[in-house]
Amino acid sequence: MSTNSINGATDRESLTIPLLANSTSQVAIVGASVCPIESLDYEIAENDFFKQDWRTCGKIQIFQYLFMKWLLCFLIGIIVSLIGFFNNLAVENIAGIKFVVTSNMMLLNRYGMAFLVFSVSNLVLTLFASIVTAFVAPAAAGSGIPEVKAYLNGVDAPGILSLRTLVVKIIGSISAVSSSLLVGKAGPMVHTGACIASLLGQGGSKKYRLTGRWLRFFKNDRDRRDLVTCGSAAGIAAAFRAPVGGVLFALEEMASWWRSALLWRAFFTTAVVAIVLRALIDLCLSGKCGLFGTGGLIMFDVYSANITYHLIDVPPVLLLGVVGGILGSLYNFLLDKVLRIYNLINEKGIVYRIFLACSISIFTSSLLFGLPWLASCQPCPADASEACPTIGRSGNYKKFQCQPGHYNDLASLIFNTNDDAIRNLFSRDTDAEFQYSSILIFFITCFFLSIFSYGIVAPAGLFVPVIVTGASYGRFVGMVVSSKSSLNHGLYAVLGAASFLGGSMRMTVSLCVIILELTNNLLLLPLIMLVLLVSKTVADAFNGNIYDLIMKAKGFPYLETHAEPYMRQLTVTDVVTGPLQLFHGIEKVGDIVHVLQTTRHNGFPVIDEPPLSESPVLYGLILRAHLIELLKKKVFSSTPVPIGPDAFEQFLASDFAKRGSGNGGKIEDIEISEEEMEMFLDLHPFTNTSPYTVVETMSLAKARVLFREVGLRHLLVIPKVTSRSPVVGILTRHDFMPEHILGLHPFLVRSRWKRLRIRLPQLFKIF
Amino acid sequence: MSTNSINGATDRESLTIPLLANSTSQVAIVGASVCPIESLDYEIAENDFFKQDWRTCGKIQIFQYLFMKWLLCFLIGIIVSLIGFFNNLAVENIAGIKFVVTSNMMLLNRYGMAFLVFSVSNLVLTLFASIVTAFVAPAAAGSGIPEVKAYLNGVDAPGILSLRTLVVKIIGSISAVSSSLLVGKAGPMVHTGACIASLLGQGGSKKYRLTGRWLRFFKNDRDRRDLVTCGSAAGIAAAFRAPVGGVLFALEEMASWWRSALLWRAFFTTAVVAIVLRALIDLCLSGKCGLFGTGGLIMFDVYSANITYHLIDVPPVLLLGVVGGILGSLYNFLLDKVLRIYNLINEKGIVYRIFLACSISIFTSSLLFGLPWLASCQPCPADASEACPTIGRSGNYKKFQCQPGHYNDLASLIFNTNDDAIRNLFSRDTDAEFQYSSILIFFITCFFLSIFSYGIVAPAGLFVPVIVTGASYGRFVGMVVSSKSSLNHGLYAVLGAASFLGGSMRMTVSLCVIILELTNNLLLLPLIMLVLLVSKTVADAFNGNIYDLIMKAKGFPYLETHAEPYMRQLTVTDVVTGPLQLFHGIEKVGDIVHVLQTTRHNGFPVIDEPPLSESPVLYGLILRAHLIELLKKKVFSSTPVPIGPDAFEQFLASDFAKRGSGNGGKIEDIEISEEEMEMFLDLHPFTNTSPYTVVETMSLAKARVLFREVGLRHLLVIPKVTSRSPVVGILTRHDFMPEHILGLHPFLVRSRWKRLRIRLPQLFKIF
Repeated sequence: MSTNSINGATDRESLTIPLLANSTSQVAIVGASVCPIESLDYEIAENDFFKQDWRTCGKIQIFQYLFMKWLLCFLIGIIVSLIGFFNNLAVENIAGIKFVVTSNMMLLNRYGMAFLVFSVSNLVLTLFASIVTAFVAPAAAGSGIPEVKAYLNGVDAPGILSLRTLVVKIIGSISAVSSSLLVGKAGPMVHTGACIASLLGQGGSKKYRLTGRWLRFFKNDRDRRDLVTCGSAAGIAAAFRAPVGGVLFALEEMASWWRSALLWRAFFTTAVVAIVLRALIDLCLSGKCGLFGTGGLIMFDVYSANITYHLIDVPPVLLLGVVGGILGSLYNFLLDKVLRIYNLINEKGIVYRIFLACSISIFTSSLLFGLPWLASCQPCPADASEACPTIGRSGNYKKFQCQPGHYNDLASLIFNTNDDAIRNLFSRDTDAEFQYSSILIFFITCFFLSIFSYGIVAPAGLFVPVIVTGASYGRFVGMVVSSKSSLNHGLYAVLGAASFLGGSMRMTVSLCVIILELTNNLLLLPLIMLVLLVSKTVADAFNGNIYDLIMKAKGFPYLETHAEPYMRQLTVTDVVTGPLQLFHGIEKVGDIVHVLQTTRHNGFPVIDEPPLSESPVLYGLILRAHLIELLKKKVFSSTPVPIGPDAFEQFLASDFAKRGSGNGGKIEDIEISEEEMEMFLDLHPFTNTSPYTVVETMSLAKARVLFREVGLRHLLVIPKVTSRSPVVGILTRHDFMPEHILGLHPFLVRSRWKRLRIRLPQLFKIF
Repeated sequence: MSTNSINGATDRESLTIPLLANSTSQVAIVGASVCPIESLDYEIAENDFFKQDWRTCGKIQIFQYLFMKWLLCFLIGIIVSLIGFFNNLAVENIAGIKFVVTSNMMLLNRYGMAFLVFSVSNLVLTLFASIVTAFVAPAAAGSGIPEVKAYLNGVDAPGILSLRTLVVKIIGSISAVSSSLLVGKAGPMVHTGACIASLLGQGGSKKYRLTGRWLRFFKNDRDRRDLVTCGSAAGIAAAFRAPVGGVLFALEEMASWWRSALLWRAFFTTAVVAIVLRALIDLCLSGKCGLFGTGGLIMFDVYSANITYHLIDVPPVLLLGVVGGILGSLYNFLLDKVLRIYNLINEKGIVYRIFLACSISIFTSSLLFGLPWLASCQPCPADASEACPTIGRSGNYKKFQCQPGHYNDLASLIFNTNDDAIRNLFSRDTDAEFQYSSILIFFITCFFLSIFSYGIVAPAGLFVPVIVTGASYGRFVGMVVSSKSSLNHGLYAVLGAASFLGGSMRMTVSLCVIILELTNNLLLLPLIMLVLLVSKTVADAFNGNIYDLIMKAKGFPYLETHAEPYMRQLTVTDVVTGPLQLFHGIEKVGDIVHVLQTTRHNGFPVIDEPPLSESPVLYGLILRAHLIELLKKKVFSSTPVPIGPDAFEQFLASDFAKRGSGNGGKIEDIEISEEEMEMFLDLHPFTNTSPYTVVETMSLAKARVLFREVGLRHLLVIPKVTSRSPVVGILTRHDFMPEHILGLHPFLVRSRWKRLRIRLPQLFKIF
């Protein structure tokens, strides 16, 4: 192969065909070959070095790759379902003991003591969660869904998928949820699934890593992203026992690039989760899991009976959707504002963060214990389908402070785990259980408490708080319209949860399937579809999806599917800024080191100039990581001559493979002597010779399509006329961000080409 | 705007910014603006003419576009559900009357007469279906799913989405299904949905077309594809009453490009279908729909009770999956072979086609009427949950020739509509109903009959035949293992249908959801997932998805998601063939006409040469359709000078918009005088100035990613060094087809870089 054809002119015959025929002779580097079989990593795979490596792949490697791909998915499924089950078991037991102890004290009228035990245990659990999060892995705070979503879009936030984050996420989530904070466990499960997938794909953590030959295929962006997608699907599947919903969630909300083949693999992963969970639950039904009885592992199997509904039920359902949409967008708006305020507090230091978490915990404990006293005691219904007041842990009728034969309806909701509260709200044949005032108090408490709880420094999901808030709102509407509707109140609670989820998270198909899998009744389908469509439509008129808002608040450069309309008005040259850093095909070591030290760019165009070529010509694109690897190996020559083929033997393909979650080596760590600085390095064999390019007159919107759809990190801009430099700029993700573009062209802010959207602050001005 | 800057050097300031500021003054062509708001049609939108057009878009246009988008989806949902309902109503009534009349004759022992009525009515219906298909719209034959799938991939087969095809598909499908042929109605419903969507998007048929201002936004590839995707989702939703399944089917099987936004719109469409269908069925339950009673609109709501299963049930379920996969791939293999034989017969002429259809009809009638005589009569069970023998149309116990108090189990399956047969097979508490021999005969009959029935010249779906075959096979397995399994036989039938569907159609999530929605029990989920995964895995080892095989047999140039591994070994220059046809920026009319007449290319590079520019430079790409439009308008000049801006006023943006299903004008239809042939045409304003380009050294696999992901039709190849011609080739879909590449490089056939797949013919050699 013409590795020395540095002028870039390709001799067609010599370039491809002969090598194909005698490629079996080139097996020198097979042992460490990375052999990216299906997944072209478009920024590295097309240099001479990798091309040689790739030719060593054969049927055996293809088989190894396929086998590993499915084995990893299988392992992800097994591990995620085990962790999901363990999470639930732990939460049910810790929170369960807490509630049983408190209830027993209240039976003895020791209310003060009960409050003390309740609030102190909550405080301890919250403190533990926030301390491990703040000190060990700050990246584990929050839901994790925005971070994973950004990762799947190509944004590598530091430490997001590390072993440390995983461990903290699991134990932090257990203690935060057990501490009666209004936080969910679904979001953390998604993050957990993503971490497990990423760690499995790279063979363990950064320090203790398996470097098996079989794992080498996954050392590239695409295969790793695929695994993480499957992992997040498994997370939702484990959290809600919703395997199909999990796949759809990964598809609709998480993944930025999606292929049919991935659908199948995600489906396999969630099928494993479903089967393992079922086996584990069967095990627990025999009563070996402590307080984990009929509860646990959210599965509100309350609607297996037939449901009938008629045309007259449509108007209240539509109303539910509209109001749910408005409430959902308001929720997003307020959550965003609160997050920004919390960020100011959190910036002051770790002590402030932990103090904030503790305050929220004490505040929550006081509300949960204090509010039920406002509700009047209700006499137990004569025809109750279960014991009243409730004996033991879970049930619809909490006694709280009431005299025997009575129950406190607000305590049944609020002084309970979130899962049990949802189950109570969704339950059938309990239409008379709750009073208007109790439901309303519960709704308002949940709405604001969940907003204030999310931003603290502990793992905290949003799914369950949104479901519980929506269910209470739906049940309230059901009670209001009960005289005119044939639907029971539990069904209204399900629809309310759907509308609030739709209004806040803005998913459609996946939420619909998740709710169906939760409530286990397909006959609900048309109503749920209706309510989701209405609430999403209404909410979309005001603001964006909650995860997108959080991503924006965190400053992730997320690349959306759609271009903003004004991007059609700009050409790529309008956004290319700053001086372009170029390398020559054979470059002085000192210059390379200088450029790497003074810039943060991750890719550099390589050009050849006379006398190496007739005229200046674009040779290709080289990555910072590869340059650092080359500098480390020090294959320098004292004169500017091409590198010999024997020099290849000093490199392993795996040296150039994509690193794990870290950024690989740093230029500061490499020591290069004064003498070496004056030597030369031949970049040709390590340069991607055919980077994607666009002409400078192309509209930004059109260049963005290429960048987004193909999933690039660098896009070279070439001139329209050939007389100038062969490359005029380089586009990165940053250049496509609306903030960057509007900064360069401020008048676009006033342009007519905007999305149609009503702004909440403007609405507030009206009122 | 610098419309005259023909040397291609872009003055950045003048190109974009000023126009943005004073663009309100340029509303001259707004009336006919096509204003592609979200959908950049990447091959036309970037010429000067369209840029000016686009700038006239404002908030009102964005609103109109959004409104139309959703209105069209709503209309698609309404119309498809009405047609789906009408289809079922017609089939149930026509087939129902036939079976009632025949059964009544048999009650009177007039067996000969019964056979005559049965076979003649079948023959007449088949004859009608095949005559309308053969004479009026041959494109309506078959399932239609492969054609729509190819369309969504960018292959425009002639007449596939025309009004004529739509009408024939509907009436042909009704008569073919009513004629007791073993053909389905789901595939034709998908095609119907796609036709409706396409026709609505273009405002009616080619001849009688609404050309409203509001429809102009949909005159481009992408918006039309989106509508067709929603239409096909609506088709499945209407056929199976499976709204979520429909969306997933469109996503997994049909669409080649998919976005989250489309998911939402497809979901909306199928929600409309679900709600309309529910209302219509409620209407029918009151008994106003003739013989359309509990049957019709496949919905096997037979499993609403709780189901339990244990670990011991897993091995038979796995076996079911493995055998289902093998049978499914064998089915695909045989269907492919039979289709190729039928093609030879069909090529001989229309009479042969119709004769073939009639032979199959007579053969089918004989089998359906003859085979039940082989089965022995069974005494009615004492505890039957319904009347035995069946009175009226649908029921589990057909009397056929038996004496009173007995039933013929084979007749209950075979002498029945397919829907009723499936319902019988899926039914619970009927474990003793069928004999081994009857089920086996039924399975073999269905397997081969459906293979022979598909290729005839009439609308014919594959879903229902595959379900009925799979269900009988599953029920047979259930009977064999019944002593060792706790699952009932009806459940085995459901799993058998799943395994055979998975083995033949190779979908996962969508099939899983469709089956769940059909049987209405979510508790089946883990078992169905398991069986689908196993059967797909097994079947994939042998051959491809049935629709892909049919597409290949039809010769559609379908562009798969994955590149073949050997494409990495080739550069783009290895596949570019034939002389490149170029145009100059200002070209002689005679040359244009000559090139258009002598080639079939649809896109041509436009270059500028000295003196127009300093050196030869690639100006852009112009489409054949636009050249023809230009030749029609005859804006020629006698000398090679640039066109004036006033000439723009002769054109409407809609002249250049994408045509409907036709190919637009033909060069042969344009009359150009000798004198005009010597004149010149300025192509600059109508040329796409920034086509996507790749460098000639890029690997074919990498260029293919750009071509496939962005959805291009033409991709220009530019030279590595600048001293040569500014463009060296043009890549089209054809150049990426494996057949084309292997034709150019035959030695690749023997290469090591192949997918892992076992070949069925090789297996046959072993036995």
